[in-house]
Amino acid sequence: MTKDEARVRAADALVRAGIALANGERESIEVADFGLGRLEEVGLQLLVYVNTQRVCAKELVLFPWQICPEHRHPPVGDDPGKEETFRCRTGVVELHVEGREPVRLFPGEQLTIPPDTRHWFQAGPDGAVVSEFSTRSRDELDVFTDPRIVR
Amino acid sequence: MTKDEARVRAADALVRAGIALANGERESIEVADFGLGRLEEVGLQLLVYVNTQRVCAKELVLFPWQICPEHRHPPVGDDPGKEETFRCRTGVVELHVEGREPVRLFPGEQLTIPPDTRHWFQAGPDGAVVSEFSTRSRDELDVFTDPRIVR
Repeated sequence: MTKDEARVRAADALVRAGIALANGERESIEVADFGLGRLEEVGLQLLVYVNTQRVCAKELVLFPWQICPEHRHPPVGDDPGKEETFRCRTGVVELHVEGREPVRLFPGEQLTIPPDTRHWFQAGPDGAVVSEFSTRSRDELDVFTDPRIVR
Repeated sequence: MTKDEARVRAADALVRAGIALANGERESIEVADFGLGRLEEVGLQLLVYVNTQRVCAKELVLFPWQICPEHRHPPVGDDPGKEETFRCRTGVVELHVEGREPVRLFPGEQLTIPPDTRHWFQAGPDGAVVSEFSTRSRDELDVFTDPRIVR
């Protein structure tokens, strides 16, 4: 699957989830393969709604069994690091968060992850659409456990 | 319309918008009549997903032509005031923001409102479901233009 194909598939998943897209948003979907070249297994599709100095909101699309690999959001200056809430919209996502049991989020369920806490997640058999509400995103500063990963 | 009736109607609007609700969320919908007792004309229904020290996310439900009256979110200590992004999910909402032309948001469209800026909004003929992504909500500190309003 190419990144262009992933973008189309992700947009379709958003529309099937009942999420209306504005002009140009389909094309703005970011496809991340984390530099591993195994997008269908390890990857993430993102539609960023807003990312200011203070607040970020986005939709995450995961294909069936797709994994977002383990990472954390470290402190930056006075900022304790990114705080995230994940809310499952469609499908199921299994979240693995440092220091707690894995949890499966079904549609309507959510979990908040504190700053600087290692986490990874994986969609179930039908993929997932997950809303993320957070403080500012600085993806380039994320610290991945696997040293081969380039964000 | 009683607040209980408004809560049921708002939950139905969310479900029709394709938004899955977790157990207990229907009952947790807040109905605000701003102390005016004219809920169908001036009021707002809110489902708060998360409201931490740093981030807030909620869904707003407006009935046909319902108005959320003019207010601003003032600075609090070091905090410059609440920053909000509104994203229309269903229906149409007309946003009136101090210092700019009114704007109509259709599904998939959004607008960010800076802190401490007067604004009000009104749904169109079919009502609206609007997502709000913001810094922390402190509704009790909102400053309404109409002095009769009690939040």
